Amino acid sequence: MRLATVRTAEGTRAALLTDDGYLDLGCPDVGTFLARTGLAGAAAGERLDVTGLAPVVPRPGKVVCVGLNYRNHILEMGRDLPEYPTLFAKYADALIGPGDDIQLAPESSAVDWEAELAVVIGATVRRASAEEAAAAIAGFTVMNDVTMRDWQYRTGQWLQGKTFEGTTPLGPVLVTPDELPGGVAPVLPISCRVDGEVVQRADTGDLVFGPVDLVRYVSTIMTLRPGDVIATGTPGGVGHARKPPRYLAEGVTLVTEIEGIGRLENTARKS
Amino acid sequence: MRLATVRTAEGTRAALLTDDGYLDLGCPDVGTFLARTGLAGAAAGERLDVTGLAPVVPRPGKVVCVGLNYRNHILEMGRDLPEYPTLFAKYADALIGPGDDIQLAPESSAVDWEAELAVVIGATVRRASAEEAAAAIAGFTVMNDVTMRDWQYRTGQWLQGKTFEGTTPLGPVLVTPDELPGGVAPVLPISCRVDGEVVQRADTGDLVFGPVDLVRYVSTIMTLRPGDVIATGTPGGVGHARKPPRYLAEGVTLVTEIEGIGRLENTARKS
Repeated sequence: MRLATVRTAEGTRAALLTDDGYLDLGCPDVGTFLARTGLAGAAAGERLDVTGLAPVVPRPGKVVCVGLNYRNHILEMGRDLPEYPTLFAKYADALIGPGDDIQLAPESSAVDWEAELAVVIGATVRRASAEEAAAAIAGFTVMNDVTMRDWQYRTGQWLQGKTFEGTTPLGPVLVTPDELPGGVAPVLPISCRVDGEVVQRADTGDLVFGPVDLVRYVSTIMTLRPGDVIATGTPGGVGHARKPPRYLAEGVTLVTEIEGIGRLENTARKS
Repeated sequence: MRLATVRTAEGTRAALLTDDGYLDLGCPDVGTFLARTGLAGAAAGERLDVTGLAPVVPRPGKVVCVGLNYRNHILEMGRDLPEYPTLFAKYADALIGPGDDIQLAPESSAVDWEAELAVVIGATVRRASAEEAAAAIAGFTVMNDVTMRDWQYRTGQWLQGKTFEGTTPLGPVLVTPDELPGGVAPVLPISCRVDGEVVQRADTGDLVFGPVDLVRYVSTIMTLRPGDVIATGTPGGVGHARKPPRYLAEGVTLVTEIEGIGRLENTARKS
C-alpha cells in the first residue's frame, strides 16, 4: 500500500495511491488516518482532484531524529560504532511537502542536506518487544533533514540548527513494509543530488540501528503513537564535510530519493 | 489573571482561578483557550467541580528547553557567559500535572531535578521584535525539567534523558505578567526541595537570556504559537553535581516553587 497526504481545493486528504490515481481515505491526512482507522481498515473512496502533495504526515506528534547511523560512513571516519543511538528532535513546523520550496532563512549561511529513510509509526507502543516494534511500523518514507550547520554548532545541542521552519521535506508517500525488500528492515538505494550532481549514495540496509531497534529504543523512553516519525540518520556526503564546504543557495534543487519509495524534489528559496 | 487546566468528572477544562474557585473558560484546556479565545477574550462562566490539576498546557505544540542560563551558577563554575542559548526539546508525553506522581522508569538509576521558570506563549509570532516578543508572552508557570542523567549523557545529545514519559510537572497555574514583579522579566524566588530539604534556591531575575530574549531567539528559528512553552533553564543545586550524587527514589517528594506563581508537589513512584 502507498499512502499520501494530498492537497486539494478543499484542503488536505489522506489518499491511497493506485494506478487509478489518489483515492480518498476519508481523513484529512495520513497521520489522522493511521490514528483513526489504521492500515487494516483502509477502504478507498472516490478519486481525488489533487493539486499537490503535503508532508506525508503534516503534523506528527513527535519527529525523532537519529544522528550518525550508517556503518560505512562511521567506519570510514575512523570512529567506533556507537553503543546507543544519538537522538534529537525536530518540530512539525519544520516540515514541507515533497515538492515544496526549502526556506533559506537569511539568518543562516550554511544550509546543508541529509537524505534519510524515515519510519512512520502505525500503532501505540511503549517498551515494545522486537515483534511489537515490527508490528508498530506502518511504513517508510523519505526525509531530507535539512540543517543550518552554523546554528547546529552554536552550542553543543543540535536542535536549533535542525528545526528551522519550512526546511524539511517528508514524503512523497508512505510505503508499507510488505512492498519493500527487507520488509521492516528495508534494503534500498538512497541518494541525494544537488543540482543534478550525486552528493550522497548509500543503502538503507547499512544502518547501525535499524528501524525495529529504533522503535524499541525510543519506546523505552516514551509511548510512540500513530503518525509519529523516526528519521533514521544520513550517510556520508553532506556539504559541511566537503573541502571547501558546499551549501544550498537560492535556486538550487535538492533531489532526495529512495528507490522503491519515491523522491523529494525541492528548490531552495530565500524566505 | 491566573489560569489553570483543571480535571473534572467530564474531563479537563480551562479555568480562571479566583477567590470563588475555578471558573469555566469554555475550553478543554489552557492551550486551546489561548489559541481560540486569547486572554483578552476571557469571560469566566460557572464554578467548576475540580478533582485535580492537569499540566497547565497539557499538549503544547512545542516545549523548548534552555540549558545553563543562571548567571551566578555559570560564573561560580568558572565558565564564561554563553553567547547563544543552548536549546533542546521535550515532547508533550513527558508532562504531568502539578500534583501527579513522577514516573521512575526502571531503565534509569539517575533521576534528577531541575526547577525552572516556564514561559507560555499567547500569540503567533515569527522573527519577533522585543516589543512583539513581550506581547506574545501570555504568562509564566513552573516546571521541573526532571532528567534521567544516565540517559542524558549516553550520547552528546541530551534529548533521550530529557523526555521520559510522565516525568515533568508543569503548573499549577499560568500567571499573567501584570501580576508579577518585573512583568515579562519576572524577579521571583525559585526553589526546589527534596523531601523537605532545600536543594535549589535562586532568583528568576538572574537569567542570562530572559523571557523576551528567548521568545525573540526561538521565533527566529520557527513560528511560536499559543500554548507553546519555553522552559528557561535551572539554577545550581542539581543532584548530579553533588558529591556523592543524589537522585530521586521511590516515595521521595519533590517540591518546586516560584513565589508569586505557585508550587508543584510530586512524588517519585516506580512506573
